[in-house]
Amino acid sequence: IKVFSLNSNPALAEEIAKVIGVGLGKCSVTRFSDGEVQVNIEESIRGCDVFIVQSTSAPVNERLMELLIMIDALKRAAAKTITIVIPYYGYARQDRKARAREPITAKLVANLLETAGAHRVIALDLHAPQIQGFFDILIDHLMAVPILGEYFKGKELDDIVIVSPDHGGVTRARKLADRLKAPIAIIDKRRPRPNVAEVMNIVGQVEGKTAILIDDMIDTAGTITLAANALVEAGATQVYACCTHPVLSGPAIDRIQNSKIKELVVTNSIALTDEKKIDKVTQLSVAPLIGEAI
Amino acid sequence: IKVFSLNSNPALAEEIAKVIGVGLGKCSVTRFSDGEVQVNIEESIRGCDVFIVQSTSAPVNERLMELLIMIDALKRAAAKTITIVIPYYGYARQDRKARAREPITAKLVANLLETAGAHRVIALDLHAPQIQGFFDILIDHLMAVPILGEYFKGKELDDIVIVSPDHGGVTRARKLADRLKAPIAIIDKRRPRPNVAEVMNIVGQVEGKTAILIDDMIDTAGTITLAANALVEAGATQVYACCTHPVLSGPAIDRIQNSKIKELVVTNSIALTDEKKIDKVTQLSVAPLIGEAI
Ligand SMILES: Nc1ncnc2c1ncn2[C@@H]1O[C@H](COP(=O)(O)O)[C@@H](O)[C@H]1O
Ligand SMILES: Nc1ncnc2c1ncn2[C@@H]1O[C@H](COP(=O)(O)O)[C@@H](O)[C@H]1O
Repeated sequence: IKVFSLNSNPALAEEIAKVIGVGLGKCSVTRFSDGEVQVNIEESIRGCDVFIVQSTSAPVNERLMELLIMIDALKRAAAKTITIVIPYYGYARQDRKARAREPITAKLVANLLETAGAHRVIALDLHAPQIQGFFDILIDHLMAVPILGEYFKGKELDDIVIVSPDHGGVTRARKLADRLKAPIAIIDKRRPRPNVAEVMNIVGQVEGKTAILIDDMIDTAGTITLAANALVEAGATQVYACCTHPVLSGPAIDRIQNSKIKELVVTNSIALTDEKKIDKVTQLSVAPLIGEAI
Repeated sequence: IKVFSLNSNPALAEEIAKVIGVGLGKCSVTRFSDGEVQVNIEESIRGCDVFIVQSTSAPVNERLMELLIMIDALKRAAAKTITIVIPYYGYARQDRKARAREPITAKLVANLLETAGAHRVIALDLHAPQIQGFFDILIDHLMAVPILGEYFKGKELDDIVIVSPDHGGVTRARKLADRLKAPIAIIDKRRPRPNVAEVMNIVGQVEGKTAILIDDMIDTAGTITLAANALVEAGATQVYACCTHPVLSGPAIDRIQNSKIKELVVTNSIALTDEKKIDKVTQLSVAPLIGEAI
């Protein structure tokens, strides 16, 4: 068994290797002068069960091509099996044709990974669980809810309510609520008429309670910060937020910094650059979870 | 028949559309906040024969993913056939395992394009003609030598010799020489002992002649500028250079500017950024050639 890290999450890969008790495989993934990916695998992997740790987070196209080329190199170097560990699966939101002539990039990516030669996938909190069905190869789908749940249990908060920021996330909120023995609430966004601002209606009891917002990913943080403000207005005493994937693009960090969110709890499925490591953000490791699945 | 341009060569695509007498299809390929590719095809293409013009030049991974996602979108929008026009095929130099555990990315890319749903490929001066065999779909392989040949004929140069900068390019040099009714010469690089500078030996007559160096691509321009200097030292009166693909990465432009090369003639298979449009560089269009193949 060999574990290789590409460029997205070297720290997580190191941790996973430690959890399962092996060293990281020696390889480097760099660029030629013209920007083409150069892969160097510096040890024999013939006949080995190989694991590659790589999130397809930003820059997503670079990370994805690194992964595809690495799979090709390992296949041609006679790896016995190639398992790709993708803590964050990029393009997951493009998982259906919502409008005419849209691509279904999440399916395309699944096809590309199989074409390159992957035998098995380990993924974490896919944006839609249906994405598992985009693969014809074995896929293990892990969930971060237990990790987030343990963290909040440790805080011993009183009178909690778990809040889904939209209708799509209610099942996820219910799972966290079960672990914390808490009720749930839902932010029910509605646009009364076209070209009129959305109204944030709250379904459920939040007054006087500690609200914990949960989502699978936070990208520009527009939804989650507006939801936090709406919760405070509705009488929540404090608001926490959590998600599996800290995409945090564009104005996200500013918005979180200036929001009513007291603490944002995320996992290391996506590595945070230094300017995203603000005091309000707590990052939990998914290495034990992934180590177990390997 | 519909022609769409992605982001690599909009001017060339426009020209190709004009040559074949159609307008460019309406589409935009942009980015979401987190850097994921967003494709918008703004007209129906159901039942159409669709052509996509896109070189996989730098940034190669972005250009390639744009192309793959566009193919997916067109396929799902019921295009009858999808032909990809790739004037410059990125990763072409990674076309074999030169060292242990190297990927063969040129083959991987061919597989990815087929998996996405391409039916036919139009390519131009592939780094190795064998790359045609990497595809199981129809591929047309065009050559820029006639275009380069016509240009040099127009200059009415006397006493020409066509020079290949390495052994691999002799066949290409021979083709240009046939068109210009000129003899050929070869730069024979040799390292006498390890860790000793290479010696540039010239096989053939160049003294008192106008030398025209020809290669398929010029990347960092190290080889071609050293070759030009060697030709002048060997008594060539002036040195022209030409290639199909102006990759021109890293120090290329500086090197050319400061070299003995009088003029560098290239095609528009790769669009030149403004800082690469120096006086010494002449760019010829391959639009008529591609238009004919469509
Ligand atoms: N990277 C992205 N950033 C923002 N929106 C996206 C992205 N990828 C896809 N989408 C859009 O987000 C919608 C799906 O999001 P959701 O409703 O949360 O599943 C679709 O309409 C997509 O067009
Ligand atoms: N983008 C690139 N830039 C520089 N060298 C490359 C690139 N891609 C592949 N190579 C290397 O170039 C060699 C092939 O070049 P050639 O001998 O001209 O066919 C191989 O050893 C490759 O590892």
